[in-house]
Amino acid sequence: MNTFGRNFRITTFGESHGRALGVVVDGCPPNIPLDDHDIQALLDRRRPGTSPLSSQRKEADQVEILSGIFERKTTGTPIAMIVRNTDTRSKDYEALREVFRPGHADFTFHEKYGIRDHRGGGRSSGRETVGRVAAGAIAMKLLATHGISVKGQILSVHGRTSKKAIDAEILAAKNNGDSVGGIAEIVAKGCPAGLGDPVFGKLDAMIAGAMMGIGAVKGVEIGDGFAVAGKYGSENNDAMTKKGFATNHAGGILGGISTGQEIVVRIAVKPTPSIEKTQQTRDTSGNVVDISVGGRHDPCIVPRIIPVAEAMLALVLADCWLEQAKYGQQTMKT
Amino acid sequence: MNTFGRNFRITTFGESHGRALGVVVDGCPPNIPLDDHDIQALLDRRRPGTSPLSSQRKEADQVEILSGIFERKTTGTPIAMIVRNTDTRSKDYEALREVFRPGHADFTFHEKYGIRDHRGGGRSSGRETVGRVAAGAIAMKLLATHGISVKGQILSVHGRTSKKAIDAEILAAKNNGDSVGGIAEIVAKGCPAGLGDPVFGKLDAMIAGAMMGIGAVKGVEIGDGFAVAGKYGSENNDAMTKKGFATNHAGGILGGISTGQEIVVRIAVKPTPSIEKTQQTRDTSGNVVDISVGGRHDPCIVPRIIPVAEAMLALVLADCWLEQAKYGQQTMKT
Amino acid sequence: MNTFGRNFRITTFGESHGRALGVVVDGCPPNIPLDDHDIQALLDRRRPGTSPLSSQRKEADQVEILSGIFERKTTGTPIAMIVRNTDTRSKDYEALREVFRPGHADFTFHEKYGIRDHRGGGRSSGRETVGRVAAGAIAMKLLATHGISVKGQILSVHGRTSKKAIDAEILAAKNNGDSVGGIAEIVAKGCPAGLGDPVFGKLDAMIAGAMMGIGAVKGVEIGDGFAVAGKYGSENNDAMTKKGFATNHAGGILGGISTGQEIVVRIAVKPTPSIEKTQQTRDTSGNVVDISVGGRHDPCIVPRIIPVAEAMLALVLADCWLEQAKYGQQTMKT
Amino acid sequence: MNTFGRNFRITTFGESHGRALGVVVDGCPPNIPLDDHDIQALLDRRRPGTSPLSSQRKEADQVEILSGIFERKTTGTPIAMIVRNTDTRSKDYEALREVFRPGHADFTFHEKYGIRDHRGGGRSSGRETVGRVAAGAIAMKLLATHGISVKGQILSVHGRTSKKAIDAEILAAKNNGDSVGGIAEIVAKGCPAGLGDPVFGKLDAMIAGAMMGIGAVKGVEIGDGFAVAGKYGSENNDAMTKKGFATNHAGGILGGISTGQEIVVRIAVKPTPSIEKTQQTRDTSGNVVDISVGGRHDPCIVPRIIPVAEAMLALVLADCWLEQAKYGQQTMKT
Repeated sequence: MNTFGRNFRITTFGESHGRALGVVVDGCPPNIPLDDHDIQALLDRRRPGTSPLSSQRKEADQVEILSGIFERKTTGTPIAMIVRNTDTRSKDYEALREVFRPGHADFTFHEKYGIRDHRGGGRSSGRETVGRVAAGAIAMKLLATHGISVKGQILSVHGRTSKKAIDAEILAAKNNGDSVGGIAEIVAKGCPAGLGDPVFGKLDAMIAGAMMGIGAVKGVEIGDGFAVAGKYGSENNDAMTKKGFATNHAGGILGGISTGQEIVVRIAVKPTPSIEKTQQTRDTSGNVVDISVGGRHDPCIVPRIIPVAEAMLALVLADCWLEQAKYGQQTMKT
Repeated sequence: MNTFGRNFRITTFGESHGRALGVVVDGCPPNIPLDDHDIQALLDRRRPGTSPLSSQRKEADQVEILSGIFERKTTGTPIAMIVRNTDTRSKDYEALREVFRPGHADFTFHEKYGIRDHRGGGRSSGRETVGRVAAGAIAMKLLATHGISVKGQILSVHGRTSKKAIDAEILAAKNNGDSVGGIAEIVAKGCPAGLGDPVFGKLDAMIAGAMMGIGAVKGVEIGDGFAVAGKYGSENNDAMTKKGFATNHAGGILGGISTGQEIVVRIAVKPTPSIEKTQQTRDTSGNVVDISVGGRHDPCIVPRIIPVAEAMLALVLADCWLEQAKYGQQTMKT
Repeated sequence: MNTFGRNFRITTFGESHGRALGVVVDGCPPNIPLDDHDIQALLDRRRPGTSPLSSQRKEADQVEILSGIFERKTTGTPIAMIVRNTDTRSKDYEALREVFRPGHADFTFHEKYGIRDHRGGGRSSGRETVGRVAAGAIAMKLLATHGISVKGQILSVHGRTSKKAIDAEILAAKNNGDSVGGIAEIVAKGCPAGLGDPVFGKLDAMIAGAMMGIGAVKGVEIGDGFAVAGKYGSENNDAMTKKGFATNHAGGILGGISTGQEIVVRIAVKPTPSIEKTQQTRDTSGNVVDISVGGRHDPCIVPRIIPVAEAMLALVLADCWLEQAKYGQQTMKT
Repeated sequence: MNTFGRNFRITTFGESHGRALGVVVDGCPPNIPLDDHDIQALLDRRRPGTSPLSSQRKEADQVEILSGIFERKTTGTPIAMIVRNTDTRSKDYEALREVFRPGHADFTFHEKYGIRDHRGGGRSSGRETVGRVAAGAIAMKLLATHGISVKGQILSVHGRTSKKAIDAEILAAKNNGDSVGGIAEIVAKGCPAGLGDPVFGKLDAMIAGAMMGIGAVKGVEIGDGFAVAGKYGSENNDAMTKKGFATNHAGGILGGISTGQEIVVRIAVKPTPSIEKTQQTRDTSGNVVDISVGGRHDPCIVPRIIPVAEAMLALVLADCWLEQAKYGQQTMKT
């Protein structure tokens, strides 16, 4: 289950301290102009070490496209891309070989597989998203040719909503050996009506799965989201006008199918589990021990999750676009 | 995309006013005792017409198992089940043939397919969930043999939390020609650690997709959900003890894999869009018109969504159980 | 794995002596005119009891469409169809409850599932193909709108090639308590170039899987098939001319993609394993016993396999047509 | 559709003259000992340039494992492997940029995608199978732990069956600027009964799809294959004895499920289409032109197809093994 999508399919691979991370994109249409720069631009946005508020691991995250491109255009064959890990300090993690960090996947990987690459979190590391972002960059190119764009922003961190207050919260948490959570919003503009399928392939169902499939995300909502629980139908329904809709409480999706309005998604991001503050945990032998997680970690992952969430939304939309194009001759209007 | 699941796979079919609704369950293990009564019990819980607070459509929702059972046991072959529609009043819907009900899938189906069965909402009707619930009943039987159970409850309706206040809210909305939303919580007990896959097959990702794939659901959260956005890592991490975990902020899932604790899911349910109150909308010719939706509708869908949400959670867990069983010889402890 | 196809997907269900056989077709485009008669015509071609050379089981094989159709057109939602079993004589099979018929799936089902519906072969019966043929009828309607047709014929039975000699062979085998095999050819006309994908989704790979997935088929070949093993490249390559190709040794497929020529497929069909002649076999307790298979069986299944093979080829082509349509805006010429 | 398998899934990528070829293996169980040598041994068997009878392209085909391995064991996470192309002479192919080689995928790729990497055949080159063979090596390791092995051999080339006569045929064809076809047989030993699913997931259906998905394969047969068409049921049925079966006409598969006997598969391989002999073809502008294909080609691909066919059979069996393991607690005997 390292593959995502039905039509625009990506398969990611790689561990935090392994040789390389990467992705294979299968099902991308041919004849789309593409080169390394298109990918690198988005990768640079998720790259660590670029701010005092993020992890200090220094990775160039330089992408190499291995296949699927001919004379700077996609050919319809699979596009494989890799990014080599260069700044791994695996010995930083030696102490964690037999200890389960609280809030981390260490314990569950151990229970599931009976073996785990403990170095930098292995496959459960946020570095796994390098492949998603690289693939998302291609999805965005495809969407752009149809006038669709995707853009994310931080809504709040630890309840604060201004850039200045947010930075201060993150810095305070860092200085305190702690971390903080927050909320991000991702919006897609330019989507035509008709994307998404009724029942299990609902556009919102696929978005929810895509977002909750990003590490640290604990909640997803579309449009008014949880607020609908406190509303009357007469407040929540979006009246229709001559030109479209009077409001967008639905967040651009009705019955699992896009309405043609903006698609609005919000995600709740938990505080990074790796903190210096001492916590109680267990080791692989069952002993209860104290732990202070060293290494280089983000005190708040919300800023760096934005390009990942954008990539995931773009992947879902590209997939749904192709799904709908199948029936184009019967139904879609150009 | 009317199929859900990788190992325990269901395919639903049917429209609100068509001949029948149903489901095919593929991948169910052999030798599980099963007969009509096992299915009927759960179907009866989602049946309409059983309370003054729900739709007055009278459907027996009598299930017929067509295949996959031999001498009251599953055989490993596909189990097809159907429920015939008996109390359809399609002429009630004639006025809606060319009008888009606000908050409904009418408009988006029209845009997507260029044709739609307007009678009772067709495929977008809540009646589609009959198939899910029938299939969920089988998933629950499978889970029960492994000590896993699933149970849902209403947390709130329009902000009220007591049974009495909730009933009063629903009745008031009904009398007012309006509807109300609410929040439900579904909990799975007895899950072993190790269910779910890292990356795209995360247990929480599959749950989020499953829940958001139920009509009217606009938000999903796991464990502390959106509340994590306002917390510090030191508050949110679940410390480990000799016996397990001290707390369960994570809702039973870390890194997309079950921890062995209770799995806790909450969903936000929008107010039923079908209301008598006059709303502004459009018809298929583009005219703006007023609409008052008659027919027989639930003024609040939260109570009847519970068995559906339970079924979806059971389906995800049954699927993950079989997924993990594949690797059983290498990793799982009995 | 009772589902076939990526875009035009079918899921079949049902046993030989169960309540009903059926299929759900998912992914069929909307707005295709369709009613029971379209399905019945093809079902009637595979129906038993219509000739002294076929099984004497009398089944009307009357199809009922349960969903997915509105005012005699497809709506894009799943089309479920069922055929009830009416002429089951399950007691004919009581003697086979604990004996494995040679050449049948009795032994392997027993080994795989530890339980099996022995009545009439259960799920392994040729009656399972009722669902495939019903679904194939819809695929053919879709293909017909694009000018594609599929047609099969008997090439030989037990080495004989004329209708008269073939009938005589079958009758002789029947009278002798035996059965005979043969070869059938299925040809698709009107396919555009470009159907099928390189690598694992090759058109010929999908056809081979589809054909070998029909019970009794033991070999599949495309174009010149096994004869290519004795040829030189200069003989086997199809030269190109101004208008297309000079020959069609390739059977209409190069590199897994259709060339625009006729697609030519041949299948080898084994003699029906159910014969009256006494054979040695085993029972479920491990005893070696003699068996003479009674009941109503086809002495040669080749004639009745034709509509099934046509259906499978139509299903593959419909699936590939939709797959290619996805990328239509970029690549296909109308 | 560059992904193969349901449980043991591989995704291949890469072109003949691109930067690298490779594969991602997803779903491999954890804790299997694995390093580069395990892969390299099988890759070396399909490597070109090792005999005067094969292509003279000199490729080391050195594999690099990028992920999924920790301390020389599989971890359950995806195993990505790449092989860099080193001996590409793309200018040899410049003349073919706008000409369709007869018998090749040049024309069909052009029709399908409207763009193609003409260098060395691009994605349609036999070099694509590097990824399959690397993945097959892992499947074989998994199978070996369960006592299953896979082995292929050449049965005939251009009708000759002795090693000496075969070599002479190939050399004669080469010297004549031509090529020859042949037949190969692949046998799996040690398979338990119960692998494969009824209906569309039949073991033989999956094998047929896998084999026909190898370039140049035009026919596939199981057990007695096409010979069954000339036999009586009483000849073709395999009688059962105390210990198992008296014969193996079925090739180890009944009803799509393994019997526990040897699985026997034969494939017909066409003569390599690239020949020096002058042939008539067309260019992209529609002109009829003469062509003599230079470059470095195999005059007979049968010898080098053996490790590829072995890999594909191993992949199918590993996939079916895991599929069956899912239901292990209910049905399989260890």
